[in-house]
Amino acid sequence: MAITGVLRAAMMQLRVLDLETSVDFYTKVVGLFEVGRTSDGRVLLKGYDEFDHHSLALRGAEAAGMDFMGFKVASDAYLDYLTGRTKEFGFPTEDIPANSDQPGVGRRVSVRTSTGHRIDFFADIEGSDPKPSILNPEIWTVEPRGIGAAAFDHALLFGPGAAETVRYFMEVCGFAPVEKGLLPDGNAFVTWLSCASRTHDVAILEFEHPGKLHHVAYKLDNWNDIGHAADIMTMNEVTVDAGPMRQGATRGQMIYFFDPSGNRLEACAGGYAYYPDMPVRVWDFDHIGKGAFYYSRRLNDNFLKIVS
Amino acid sequence: MAITGVLRAAMMQLRVLDLETSVDFYTKVVGLFEVGRTSDGRVLLKGYDEFDHHSLALRGAEAAGMDFMGFKVASDAYLDYLTGRTKEFGFPTEDIPANSDQPGVGRRVSVRTSTGHRIDFFADIEGSDPKPSILNPEIWTVEPRGIGAAAFDHALLFGPGAAETVRYFMEVCGFAPVEKGLLPDGNAFVTWLSCASRTHDVAILEFEHPGKLHHVAYKLDNWNDIGHAADIMTMNEVTVDAGPMRQGATRGQMIYFFDPSGNRLEACAGGYAYYPDMPVRVWDFDHIGKGAFYYSRRLNDNFLKIVS
Amino acid sequence: MAITGVLRAAMMQLRVLDLETSVDFYTKVVGLFEVGRTSDGRVLLKGYDEFDHHSLALRGAEAAGMDFMGFKVASDAYLDYLTGRTKEFGFPTEDIPANSDQPGVGRRVSVRTSTGHRIDFFADIEGSDPKPSILNPEIWTVEPRGIGAAAFDHALLFGPGAAETVRYFMEVCGFAPVEKGLLPDGNAFVTWLSCASRTHDVAILEFEHPGKLHHVAYKLDNWNDIGHAADIMTMNEVTVDAGPMRQGATRGQMIYFFDPSGNRLEACAGGYAYYPDMPVRVWDFDHIGKGAFYYSRRLNDNFLKIVS
Amino acid sequence: MAITGVLRAAMMQLRVLDLETSVDFYTKVVGLFEVGRTSDGRVLLKGYDEFDHHSLALRGAEAAGMDFMGFKVASDAYLDYLTGRTKEFGFPTEDIPANSDQPGVGRRVSVRTSTGHRIDFFADIEGSDPKPSILNPEIWTVEPRGIGAAAFDHALLFGPGAAETVRYFMEVCGFAPVEKGLLPDGNAFVTWLSCASRTHDVAILEFEHPGKLHHVAYKLDNWNDIGHAADIMTMNEVTVDAGPMRQGATRGQMIYFFDPSGNRLEACAGGYAYYPDMPVRVWDFDHIGKGAFYYSRRLNDNFLKIVS
Repeated sequence: MAITGVLRAAMMQLRVLDLETSVDFYTKVVGLFEVGRTSDGRVLLKGYDEFDHHSLALRGAEAAGMDFMGFKVASDAYLDYLTGRTKEFGFPTEDIPANSDQPGVGRRVSVRTSTGHRIDFFADIEGSDPKPSILNPEIWTVEPRGIGAAAFDHALLFGPGAAETVRYFMEVCGFAPVEKGLLPDGNAFVTWLSCASRTHDVAILEFEHPGKLHHVAYKLDNWNDIGHAADIMTMNEVTVDAGPMRQGATRGQMIYFFDPSGNRLEACAGGYAYYPDMPVRVWDFDHIGKGAFYYSRRLNDNFLKIVS
Repeated sequence: MAITGVLRAAMMQLRVLDLETSVDFYTKVVGLFEVGRTSDGRVLLKGYDEFDHHSLALRGAEAAGMDFMGFKVASDAYLDYLTGRTKEFGFPTEDIPANSDQPGVGRRVSVRTSTGHRIDFFADIEGSDPKPSILNPEIWTVEPRGIGAAAFDHALLFGPGAAETVRYFMEVCGFAPVEKGLLPDGNAFVTWLSCASRTHDVAILEFEHPGKLHHVAYKLDNWNDIGHAADIMTMNEVTVDAGPMRQGATRGQMIYFFDPSGNRLEACAGGYAYYPDMPVRVWDFDHIGKGAFYYSRRLNDNFLKIVS
Repeated sequence: MAITGVLRAAMMQLRVLDLETSVDFYTKVVGLFEVGRTSDGRVLLKGYDEFDHHSLALRGAEAAGMDFMGFKVASDAYLDYLTGRTKEFGFPTEDIPANSDQPGVGRRVSVRTSTGHRIDFFADIEGSDPKPSILNPEIWTVEPRGIGAAAFDHALLFGPGAAETVRYFMEVCGFAPVEKGLLPDGNAFVTWLSCASRTHDVAILEFEHPGKLHHVAYKLDNWNDIGHAADIMTMNEVTVDAGPMRQGATRGQMIYFFDPSGNRLEACAGGYAYYPDMPVRVWDFDHIGKGAFYYSRRLNDNFLKIVS
Repeated sequence: MAITGVLRAAMMQLRVLDLETSVDFYTKVVGLFEVGRTSDGRVLLKGYDEFDHHSLALRGAEAAGMDFMGFKVASDAYLDYLTGRTKEFGFPTEDIPANSDQPGVGRRVSVRTSTGHRIDFFADIEGSDPKPSILNPEIWTVEPRGIGAAAFDHALLFGPGAAETVRYFMEVCGFAPVEKGLLPDGNAFVTWLSCASRTHDVAILEFEHPGKLHHVAYKLDNWNDIGHAADIMTMNEVTVDAGPMRQGATRGQMIYFFDPSGNRLEACAGGYAYYPDMPVRVWDFDHIGKGAFYYSRRLNDNFLKIVS
């Protein structure tokens, strides 16, 4: 296959304050489907267009935020490769057995980055319904609902030592730096990283506090869906952070909003298809507002402050 | 990089009856940009969202059709790998020196498939304007015009021995079979093949006559652009073959139309992003109409008959 | 009020073969809401964006077709005016008491046109739910479903003596001829008629057989909704007659499809807003295909043949 | 005709600081077409979908703002009716001869409202190119450019004595109050007024200073066009005030931006079609933010402060 190594951002475990309120929100508003619960009470969800067992796990907790972000890789052998290379790189790794805290998921290599995030890699995961049909397939098997999130797309992570974590994703995991936002001194403070053709599977931004989540993004089809999502959010009294708009970086169209616990989410569409022969696109410090919010061309007050 | 080997469908050389009429059509209606002419009179064009020097070469000729289709690969070394593996596979190959008939293009490995098509692979190609800007980039540097074709996307090729050519793309070039259309006996007569994340970079359909072109597809952004393209085609008296519609296979939205010489073109948008862990989607013989034309659910008279 | 006299096309009573199958179709696929049933078994429906009690009545019968089309007028006094003027014009009229066969509807003036259609006019009609809210209104009160038909929009009627019926709508009812399709001799064989700002509330086409229905149209918001409607139709195995497309006449975008009894329906969007100071737009005989189907520029085989 | 009396908002004369910069902006960004200049140097413009001679006059001046807003009425006789009724109502009127300061425009009745605005009514106006074709019409005769403004749609005027001016439009000119925004005491401080089927041809908001302009709106086709307009604005460094968004009131989708002189403009699409039998929709004081900005549900700082 021409896509090798790490395939895609594929999983997120989020902490939420009130679990049932959150399940309601993620199913009725975001439009994910509940596919299971763990014995310790976590709830597993997925988008209608995902084959994998689940892409989101919600865990009831005292404070919002992320427990870990997961990436699917092309083969079990690649996990061994990652373990070795990660140790050489110097980030701590841990082996997580199959079917432990994530039902349906094979063994994982779990890495702790300099930014304080836990990143899990896995090669095997069972399927679950709903998923796309493969014999004379209709465009979906279960009608999308709420804003109609099709699949988990990417996340933006905030933490210290971003440059080192970016270097890890590039040198060890084979990610490409697709776009960068620069400080006045010319160093990157935010990097969009792709492991295949998405403009980013993960982006990393330099931040004082470790392990922070800026947003988790779900895929919609187009700008019309972004407008529909905005309507659904108003009718459900969801707090919108910004949008509908286009982001300069990646050219994607989106809306940012908050789940009931204060985790920022994004519904995204559009953007170009990345190929590894593309040059890195760069936003200098004076244009970073435009890189984030292409229409207002300035960051709103919350955007760099509120994280979970 | 996680996308390795063959990167994407990247070039097409078409035969056209009247060259200047065709250049007019491809620039004003399709919206490509002329970036050069060769000493033997061929015209080189590209989409506004392509970095590469050109993705289309038009050659004046007595009959419409394609001379060759080109794929860009990740590295020069991969060309050597392809040469060796192609010889083992048994398809004839030829080395084409850099900057010969395709200005700006590095050395190519040219392969003749069982379906009678010439397929060229290259690793190096110069850039040209217009192309996306990379410093504080606007969404385009030159306003799209005509139907606004952003980039060459894929082609559907017709010829005998399709199964052997499909096997070549899979076993030698690392393409994945994304979707298949089956005969009553269960054998595939059409296969959609991807080298990265497109639902197809090339599709191959079993056909009596060798080396035939069914269509060349250009990328638009969304369904609204497909409707706009249809308007532009009517106002320019372009012959539309089918659409606007959705194709069941790939879920893409599109319109098929003809260039002034009778080469069928497609403007496409949407469709899912392919990953190599996805199962093959299959259209059985009774549903092939729906696989092609999701809305009418039957092929029109021309679709399997008119090729160039 | 600046819109006076006849306000809009507001009601249709259709004959359907199997009533419950039809109710299922009109509610789940078309997305109308059942608001009541009559003692003789007819089913009353409406779109989510209509204030009026109902806009569609379905009657079980041996053959498909329309019983009558209704128009809402601005005042009860206008009904008296219409009665008098209709008698002078020479079309038979009948008074229908309030709350007789149409629950919630005030007294009607019922007219028989030269084309063999029954046209009812009424000034008063009760409200029903769902309807738009009026205090801090959300964009809808009940989530649209199926193709999301918002409201009844217009109908195209076929019958003999079309010129006389067009003259009736213009001279007696104050309709404007918005667009016309001409025979080779320059006489109109189809006229689009508006009583306010729609490009047409009713269109009349000269036809051999009296009282025929070509299609009943429901309003969607835009071209994206037309595409969504097409997807929903395929997934529900609805027979599509033509589209998605644009109609040259009125510039509207649409898809034509059939209800389970063979009544042709249309989902429409777009088109310009008509004002009475606009000149009549004319399609000469050689361009009538383009006037109907702007993209294919030719009528399909069914379009002028299949009526109910 | 069923639309009688005042037909539509049809003209605006704006003051701009630098005339040529403004003409550039209104033609290249807004996409209007220059159709003439007056001997005193004013520039006349129109949208591509308007038959009338012009809908915008730009006058070079020391300060931005509006000179007058014009409405087209159904007949010359209606101008006499308006003159008489306006005098009875108590607003000063003035007769302006045909072809005086507005070339191509017939005689006008000019009224001074309590809010300090000059409102002109006229029945006759010549045509000009570009305009829609009427024989086998394409969807446009000149390709839309910039954001593609099709036609002048409405304006929001700020001034003292709003209630009296609203009463004038209703009682004398036959406008309907389509939506209202209420103060805590239940009195309207803003009223959307329609003379036909638009959700508003003019809206009036109570304000301390007389004769102020909040915004002039131009019509686009749909939400996709609003997004495209936002892209064009960024690429032309136009100051965006708010949007893309939906307005709760009227359900329209829009973006607010400023011309180079500081006049606020709007590109709008969507919204329902108004009929005079619709109830008035009301936004109470606690929901006025949502009535203005449906997605953020709060007014931005500039919205009630910046006027010209």
